This record gives sequence, C-alpha cells and structure tokens, in this order.
Amino acid sequence: MSDIRKIAVLTSGGDAPGMNSAVRAVVVSAINSGIEIVGVMRGYEGLIDWETQPLGLADVRNINNQGGTILFTSRSERFLQKEYREQAAKNLRDHDIDALVAIGGDGTLRGAIAFQDEGINTICIPGTIDRDVACSEYTLGFDTAANTAMEAIDRIRDSSVSHGRCSVVEVMGRKRGYIALWAGMATSADAIIIPEKWDGDFDSIIDTIKAKHADGRNSYLVVVAEGVTDAPELAQMILDKTGIESRVSVLGYIQRGGQPTAKDRMYGSLMGAYAVDVLKKGGTNRMVAIKNDILIDYDIKEAIDIQNNQLDSFQYELSKLLAE
Amino acid sequence: MSDIRKIAVLTSGGDAPGMNSAVRAVVVSAINSGIEIVGVMRGYEGLIDWETQPLGLADVRNINNQGGTILFTSRSERFLQKEYREQAAKNLRDHDIDALVAIGGDGTLRGAIAFQDEGINTICIPGTIDRDVACSEYTLGFDTAANTAMEAIDRIRDSSVSHGRCSVVEVMGRKRGYIALWAGMATSADAIIIPEKWDGDFDSIIDTIKAKHADGRNSYLVVVAEGVTDAPELAQMILDKTGIESRVSVLGYIQRGGQPTAKDRMYGSLMGAYAVDVLKKGGTNRMVAIKNDILIDYDIKEAIDIQNNQLDSFQYELSKLLAE
Amino acid sequence: MSDIRKIAVLTSGGDAPGMNSAVRAVVVSAINSGIEIVGVMRGYEGLIDWETQPLGLADVRNINNQGGTILFTSRSERFLQKEYREQAAKNLRDHDIDALVAIGGDGTLRGAIAFQDEGINTICIPGTIDRDVACSEYTLGFDTAANTAMEAIDRIRDSSVSHGRCSVVEVMGRKRGYIALWAGMATSADAIIIPEKWDGDFDSIIDTIKAKHADGRNSYLVVVAEGVTDAPELAQMILDKTGIESRVSVLGYIQRGGQPTAKDRMYGSLMGAYAVDVLKKGGTNRMVAIKNDILIDYDIKEAIDIQNNQLDSFQYELSKLLAE
Amino acid sequence: MSDIRKIAVLTSGGDAPGMNSAVRAVVVSAINSGIEIVGVMRGYEGLIDWETQPLGLADVRNINNQGGTILFTSRSERFLQKEYREQAAKNLRDHDIDALVAIGGDGTLRGAIAFQDEGINTICIPGTIDRDVACSEYTLGFDTAANTAMEAIDRIRDSSVSHGRCSVVEVMGRKRGYIALWAGMATSADAIIIPEKWDGDFDSIIDTIKAKHADGRNSYLVVVAEGVTDAPELAQMILDKTGIESRVSVLGYIQRGGQPTAKDRMYGSLMGAYAVDVLKKGGTNRMVAIKNDILIDYDIKEAIDIQNNQLDSFQYELSKLLAE
Repeated sequence: MSDIRKIAVLTSGGDAPGMNSAVRAVVVSAINSGIEIVGVMRGYEGLIDWETQPLGLADVRNINNQGGTILFTSRSERFLQKEYREQAAKNLRDHDIDALVAIGGDGTLRGAIAFQDEGINTICIPGTIDRDVACSEYTLGFDTAANTAMEAIDRIRDSSVSHGRCSVVEVMGRKRGYIALWAGMATSADAIIIPEKWDGDFDSIIDTIKAKHADGRNSYLVVVAEGVTDAPELAQMILDKTGIESRVSVLGYIQRGGQPTAKDRMYGSLMGAYAVDVLKKGGTNRMVAIKNDILIDYDIKEAIDIQNNQLDSFQYELSKLLAE
Repeated sequence: MSDIRKIAVLTSGGDAPGMNSAVRAVVVSAINSGIEIVGVMRGYEGLIDWETQPLGLADVRNINNQGGTILFTSRSERFLQKEYREQAAKNLRDHDIDALVAIGGDGTLRGAIAFQDEGINTICIPGTIDRDVACSEYTLGFDTAANTAMEAIDRIRDSSVSHGRCSVVEVMGRKRGYIALWAGMATSADAIIIPEKWDGDFDSIIDTIKAKHADGRNSYLVVVAEGVTDAPELAQMILDKTGIESRVSVLGYIQRGGQPTAKDRMYGSLMGAYAVDVLKKGGTNRMVAIKNDILIDYDIKEAIDIQNNQLDSFQYELSKLLAE
Repeated sequence: MSDIRKIAVLTSGGDAPGMNSAVRAVVVSAINSGIEIVGVMRGYEGLIDWETQPLGLADVRNINNQGGTILFTSRSERFLQKEYREQAAKNLRDHDIDALVAIGGDGTLRGAIAFQDEGINTICIPGTIDRDVACSEYTLGFDTAANTAMEAIDRIRDSSVSHGRCSVVEVMGRKRGYIALWAGMATSADAIIIPEKWDGDFDSIIDTIKAKHADGRNSYLVVVAEGVTDAPELAQMILDKTGIESRVSVLGYIQRGGQPTAKDRMYGSLMGAYAVDVLKKGGTNRMVAIKNDILIDYDIKEAIDIQNNQLDSFQYELSKLLAE
Repeated sequence: MSDIRKIAVLTSGGDAPGMNSAVRAVVVSAINSGIEIVGVMRGYEGLIDWETQPLGLADVRNINNQGGTILFTSRSERFLQKEYREQAAKNLRDHDIDALVAIGGDGTLRGAIAFQDEGINTICIPGTIDRDVACSEYTLGFDTAANTAMEAIDRIRDSSVSHGRCSVVEVMGRKRGYIALWAGMATSADAIIIPEKWDGDFDSIIDTIKAKHADGRNSYLVVVAEGVTDAPELAQMILDKTGIESRVSVLGYIQRGGQPTAKDRMYGSLMGAYAVDVLKKGGTNRMVAIKNDILIDYDIKEAIDIQNNQLDSFQYELSKLLAE
C-alpha cells in the first residue's frame, strides 16, 4: 500500500462525454479512502498556472449527466516545453500533491510520460471521442459521439429519402474510422470511407450507387471520416458521374457535447475508481485501459507503443456486406 | 355542401416534420367522409407524370412519428411552365379528381395559384421549417427544426464552454430568422444575426464579446441565420479583434429531419382535417393558416399578398436584452 | 413609472420545465434595469423562513436547458394560514423588497391573492405542466411534458405492436386533459379519456377496439388522464370483453422533468421579461398570461375567475375522428 | 461448407431494440450468399401456423432505426408441447427450409433445444433487454433499455431535487440486475437493489439516507429491479423512518421500445451476419454469443448450462462506493 494523502485530477485535450463521470469517481473514491483531492482547471495549462480548486462530494454531485468537463480542458502548447513542466511539477510539490490523475487522449498520455522525468506520478485515463488511444479498446466519449452522429444521420436521411438525394456526411475521428464505421453501419450507409481502409477507389462507390439506382433505389448515404477525402468534391463527383443530386453535411462539434450515454457514465465511473485503486495499491505512472472488455493498466511508457487497437476488420468487411 | 367524391394529396418543396401528420389527417378525414383519396408522389412532379397510389387507412397508420414525408417531395421546375400544368390538370381530370390538397411553402402556394387557371381546386397547407409563409403564424416543421437546432447548439456549447471558445453556429431559415431567434434565445446566445434585423454592425458584436470577456466570461455563442453573413469570416473577425479562439458549425440538413414534436404532429393533424372540412363546405382555392393561434383560411391569391407575419419585435429585442 | 429597487423571485407548486428560463429572464431583466434581485428558495416556504440568496448574472448563466427549478419548490401548507403570510410579508419588508415575482400554478396564484392583503405586490407567471391555469392559454412546462409523454408512448407502442397487445397509458394532467389529448393525438391513440369529456361510456371504447380487431388491426392504444378512471380496471375490462391482452403503463414523474423544449425556454424567457416590464410600468398584483398567443396581464383577483381556457372542442372531436 | 439454400428467421419472447438490425443482417447476408430467406411472424407461433412472408432487400431497408421487431413476437405456450413442435417442423420441411435463425432470450433458446429433437437446425441469437442469457456477455436490447431507463431517471430526479424528495424507481430486469445497476450508477443512485445481491437489509438503506440527510442532502434516489422488493412498501418505509417524502415511479414498458442505440444496431448487425456465417460453415444448433467482447458460438445444449454471466462484482461494489 502506498501512502497517498493528496492527489490532483485534470482533463486534457478534446472534451469528451464521460469525463465528468470519471472525475466524479476519482473524487468520491479518493474521499472515501481518506485522500484529499484538488481539481486542476484547463488541463496541463492549469497545472502550470496553478489554477485549481479543492473538490468535495458536493462539487461532483449529479454531474454524471453533464456533457463537456467541469474542470475545463485545453491542448497545452507550453507543456511541451521542459521549463513549463518543471514549473508544473514544482507547483504540485509545493502543494504536497502525491499523484496526478490525467483524463484525455494520446496527447495527454505523452504529456504524462514527459512529466515522469520531473518526478511526478501520473495515472492516465483514456478519454477522447475518437477512440484513438491504441492501447485501450475503449476511450470515454466514443459511445456518446457515435450515438450523436448516428442520430444526426438518421435525421439527414429523412430529408434525403424524401427528396431522392445522395447525402455525403462527414463525421469526426481524426486518424481513426470508428465513429464513421459505427454511425455508418447503424444508419445502413451505402459506403463508409475511413482512414484505415481507404484506397482512393472512388469508382467502386460510384458503381455501387449506379447499381442501386438501376435497382430502383432513389436515395443514398455515404459516411466519410474527416480528413480522408474532401466531402464536397466527392458529392460533386457523384453528381457528375451519376446525375444524382448530392448534398454534403459536416457534423462538426455537435459530436463532442451532449449528455453522456449510459456506457460513458458507467465506464467513466469504472475507470475513475480503478485509477484511485491503482494509486492505493502503489501503482506509479500507469495507463488505465480496457482489454477484452476488462479493466487493466499499463506502464505509461509501454502503453504508448501498444498497437493492438486495430480496427475490427470483421466489422469493416461487414459494413460493406450490409451496405444495402 | 360540395359534392366531393375523390381528392388527391401531395407534399411539395423542402420536406418538413409534421407533413406526415397532415397527410394522415387528410386521408383519415376524407375516408371517414366517404371521399376516395389518392396520394401523389414527389409533389407537382408526380402530378405531371401521374405517379400516384391510392391511400387507405393502413397506409397512414402510425406515420405521425416519422420524419420526412411518405409521399416524397420535390421542387418542380417543370410545373413553372404552363404546358406541364396543363398536363397535370388533364391527369387529375382523367382520374376524376375533384380537388387537390397541397402541403408545402411559398413555392407550393404559388404553384396552386397558377394551377387555378387550369381549373383545378387546390387547398394549401403551410408546411416548411422556415416559417416563411407570411399569411400564417405557424408552418409545419418549425417547432421540430427549432428544437433540433437548439439541441445541437446545447451540445456545441458543452464543448465551447469546456475549451473557453467562441462558437459561431449557422442555422437554416432562408429569408426568415425564426429558427435562429428561437434556437439562439433558447441557448442564451450572446448575439443572434437574422435577416430581418441585421444592419451589418459587426462592431457591436465584437464589443459585446469584449465586454463579457472583461467581466470574466470565457465562452461565447453567436447564432447566425444562413445567408445573412459569412460565418467563417465572422469567426475569423472575432479571433482577430478579440484574440478568442472561434469555431464555426453549420447545422445543415439535420434541421430538416427527425421525429416530429408534439406540436408538429398536433398542428399537422389539425390542418389536415381542417383542409378536408374546407372542401366539404364547398371551399375552393383556399390556404389554411393560423392566426392568433386559431385555424382560418384565405383565398390563395389573397394569401400570397398578406404580410402580417412580421418577426415578433418583442422577441428580438428580448433576445438582445437576455443575451447574458 | 414605478420606483422599484429590489425584488424577489420564487417558484412554487409542482416543478415545471421552463421555470428556469423564466427565473433567468426575471434576473437578467431586473439587473439590466438596475433592480436588485433576490431568489427565494422552496416557494412560499422560503418566504416564511427567509431562505434566500442574492442572484447575479452568473447564477442564471446557461440554466435554460436545465429541468426542474434552481430555486427549488414546494406546496406550502403554512402559507394557507394568515400568521405565516404575515411573517413572510414582514420578512420582505425587513429586507426592503418592493415586489415579488411568483412562478407557479393555481395554488401559487391563490397564494398571491391572499398575500395582497398583507400589502405585498406580487406578479404571477403561469408555470405548471398541467396547463390548468384557466386565464392563460399556455402555462410553462406543458410543451415539454406533452413531448415527454408522447415519446414515452411512442416507445410503449413499439412493444405493443410487436406483441399484438392493447396498451392503456395513464398520463398526468389532474383536472385538465391537455397532456392526454396532445400525447394521445400525436401517437394516434384509439381512444383518449379526459376529465372534460369523459361520460363513462366504456362500451364505445370496447366497440371501437372490437371493430378494429375485426378489420385486422392487432394492437391498440388508449390514453387516460390520471384520476378520470382506473387504468388497471379498464385494461382488465378490455381483456374480458375482447380477449385482447392489455397492459397498463403509468408514466408518472418522468413527465415533470427533463431539459425544456424550445417553446418552454422561449415562453419562459418572454414571460419572465414581461413580468419585470409590468413592474417597471407600475403594475401591481398582476397575472401574466397568454391570450391568442400574445402576452397580456390581468389583475390577479380577476384572473382567478377567468374561465376562457376551455379545452379546444375541435381538437377533441378531431382526436375521435382521427382515432384510426 | 454446408449446402444451405433456404432459411427462415424469427424473433421470439419479449421484443428488444436491435432485433431489427439482426433480422436485417440475416436477410442481407443470406441474399448476398445466394440463400433464399423467409420471415416467420410472431415467433414460434408463426412456425406452427405457418404465418410467413418472403424477405427481400427492400423489406429490410432502413429498419435499423426502428424499435420493436418487424417480424412481431410472442411467448408461445403451444411450442412447449411436442405435437406443435412436430407441426412446426413439418411446416419447415414442407417449405424446404434448411435452417432456422431464432432471435430471443432463454425461452427461445430452450425452444430451439427442444426443436432439435424434431430434426430442425436452429441458430440462436441472444436478444432480450434483461441481459439474462447466461452464456453471452451481451444480449441485444440491453444498451437501449439501460439508456432509456437512465434518461427517465434523469427526468425523475429533476423533479425530486426541486421538491427535496426521495424517489424510488422500479426498472425492468426480471432475474438480473443489470438494467438497475447501469441506470442506477449512471444517475448516481443512493442505493441500488438487485436480485443477485439483495439481502433484505432495508436498515442500511435507511441509514444511508439518514446520514446524507444529516450532511445536508435533501433529495435521494433508490433504484429497484422489479420483483426484488415492493417499491411502494419501500417508499412508505423510507417516509416512516426518515420523515422524507418518498414517491414511487415504475418505468414499465417504455424500457422495451424506442429507436435502438448505436451499440444495439452494431451488435445486431454483427450477430445476424455471424449467424449466417455459422450456417455457411456447416454449423448446426449453435448459439451466437459474446465473450470478452468477441463473437463466438456454442452448441445450444451446452449454452443453456453456461453460467459465466455472473454480475460484475466490481461494478456492484463500485455502485455502493460511488453512491454519493
């Protein structure tokens, strides 16, 4: 057992639904274990500027259903520089903080690794809608984002079907196609373009649409992960080559916010409590992760190199099979 | 009492939630009055090509909760030409149709007026999310669209608040600012830019944001009706003049679809049944409308000239007052 | 112009979505007019016990999308007694409060009338999901409650249709059938039982179901306003007389809460700002109300006797016509 | 490879969101493999009465977002008797059906096992909101039901907090506490009563509420799985022993219906396609299941005896820890 008396918690990077449940679980678990807890505002930025507030049970009451993060967040440029990390570490030591819990994505994890050199013990929790932290099968926020994207596409399709159009919908995901894959399959997309699999074969998409058109279909749906290809260009190409009116929708920031789903609240709670357990058991510099749907933890330096989070090929092949 | 034996119903223009409830009410009311009813597909296009199907009670069962329109819709270019209207009128006469119920916006109403010259009796029902049919205080779909836009902005604001940003959100509405005004007020927007009131005074928006920033606020929301000003330019201007990171979201087609709200289902039902009542009482070429929250009807040629649908100035002034 | 310097605001009776928008509008309007404002907790109870807090702009930021009421509420038994009203009036005078804004239903209005005898100037805003304040066509919370009930019935019907059952759903409304009428019509109920119209004619409901069964329908929906008849008894009767399996659902408290709809946020904002306007113009003891969809105000003693809020008979007749 | 030419699909037992995605995936996968497919109505009842319809791609287009089951369902009493199973088997053979895909819960699985004696090859897919098929970590419909229950409790809590009450909410689940556990944790319940863990210790619940009351809390939430204890009695006990007003809500059938979540659409699609794969690979009498979040399959007679679906004790202990 470690002798942890006081810890800090922060959220960093893009905000993700479920972060608040994780914060709440960290706070409640810590307090129930007799550990004092401080909230750091705006991620690593707040560490550098020591923008903090003590957290009690009343501060995290009923926050499970709030989107965003009550601790605010940022992508800190300064934390990439050693002098600011030294300042942050000094702040933590000056305030007798024994460990830090950092909730965020890959950038947050990299920050924690760099911070280890300053002697700070950080436990990371994967939180990002993109599900792009390779060592963990799940990252907080993905389920809510996938459902939000799906519901938005359900709406877009109502209009698309009524008018007999093709809709090209761009969803978030950065380097990972999970949101596109889930939202696209859930809405019976005719094609799903994701970074892991995209080979530039526009012709097969055009051919698919033409074949369905010949079979009597009159509305179509293509879901594109942002950054893979240019959605307006694709819509124009579909119009040019098939004669079918095509409209682009970019879902954008609606995918970040909103009340978290049951899964994001449950997994946020699980991960937050698990992180405090890791600390209590003496763990240092660990990454909380999900493997085979079970909570585990890795050394943060090893975690960054794990690449077991390959996109499920069965799911992708299935999305093509079911594209009808 | 008129001797109506068989009527047709169509939906035209942009699809709007609540159109299905109106179609259902027309069908059930007609059948309960011993009137045969035919559904015309894809608006005036289907009239020209005589793309139709007989409608019975089973065809409209449980469609109240479906977005879009089960009759499909279009903006018919051909119907602007007399020869195609003649073809459409001939089709209706050939099939012994005594009257037409047309659900749509201003374009639909103008079509009906032109169609009167071909001897066709059309009853119009206002259905468009934009609420831009001047003679009626309400048009089907507005309530659903306003709620969808509001919920999307609620989500966007979660992220905006978490990051301390300014969000510039573009909503639909074409020449009317109702969606922007309702969605903006409902989400406590700091500024709402609508076509009826916009004077190009960007400085006052910048000043508002600066003043709030000076007071300690760190996230902001500007809602813009499409077509009034360029949202990305505005975001850039806010960044340049205030230093606050600003992001644009364009809500787009998600505002058209989705399961209708209770109001759109209720008013769709009311307007559909009222339209059949008008026909049964011998009405010809009438526009169903809402005035003082009561159902009335106008001659369609008079309806097009009514301009009593001024944007509620109290609401707009209030939106500025409450922009806090 | 009246010389109002400091006012209080409270919410009373059953909580209703939109109350927070009204509170926010009162606070922002007051502050923008240089009027100091105090929030009273738990309705008239907090007046008696002087449980209050000063309200500033930050206290009402982004509360438009919160269900319930941030000021809490109660049905105060003590306020029915003169000695407690005297205590409450003394508290207001001791704290230099010039006027009170009270948001609630009929009980709240009656409280304000009794309070007038203690020399307190109260402006009332109608807030109750039941829409049972007779002088106003609209009361805050109804739109959200009607949509919540409708969405719940949409879900129940999915199961009812899948199993070929009859669902008997009890909704709120107390002495008024509005929630039942709106939610029932919006979900194509086969029968709607409301206090204003119910004549105990169970046989016609049974006959309706039998006739539809004979026509090949295999699922049915009856919506009942609470207190009109016993839902389990009705379900048993339907089973006994038709042989169709019938299940009861009581929607209960889910109808009270939830994020307010656009209408409840907009009308809450309008009514709150209007109430402060009334005060600024020297109004005393006024009831804010909606008539013909326009904001007006009545003397509170006259308001209680107005009975123009008859249930719309056209809507009810229509609900029977469209019950298919 | 097996020589499958024609198969049938049915849904049985309580309807569950996601069943339609499974049906769709079975149909599309079969057709894409050149297998003819027939839909059986109302579960095993439709097998006995041979109530069927051929299924093509158009029949399953865009059904992913529909609640309930397009094939209808039932709990067949007759199928418990050998004579009716013989009749059903004869029907399948008479129509040259090579195999059956049955989507449902434990009762459906038991039916398939009994059916094996009649020489029918059945592949089962776990579909039930209760998550009570012991051999599979996931059953279709649970995620949607957990989210629906959670959202309903979010609403109930708005009112509970506003009035300072205790809410006792009864959710579904039959012999399993998963819905109660997820919905309760997601809404920060003060106590969760589930069949797997309930020891009748009402005193500890009363003590928890008293302790929180002493700390200044004024609203409370207890979530109860149906059948474990009497919710109204518990509410009365809380009132009697703490003096805190307590209200009961029974969520009931709203938990069954509604548009499926992304997870239920995705897992329905995966399981449906996997079932056809099993058939194509020559599998007979197999149960599709999830283990460690991966698709696997068991012999149906072995599947019924697997008891690896123990409620996650970490989750339950956590729910007590986080009950704050």
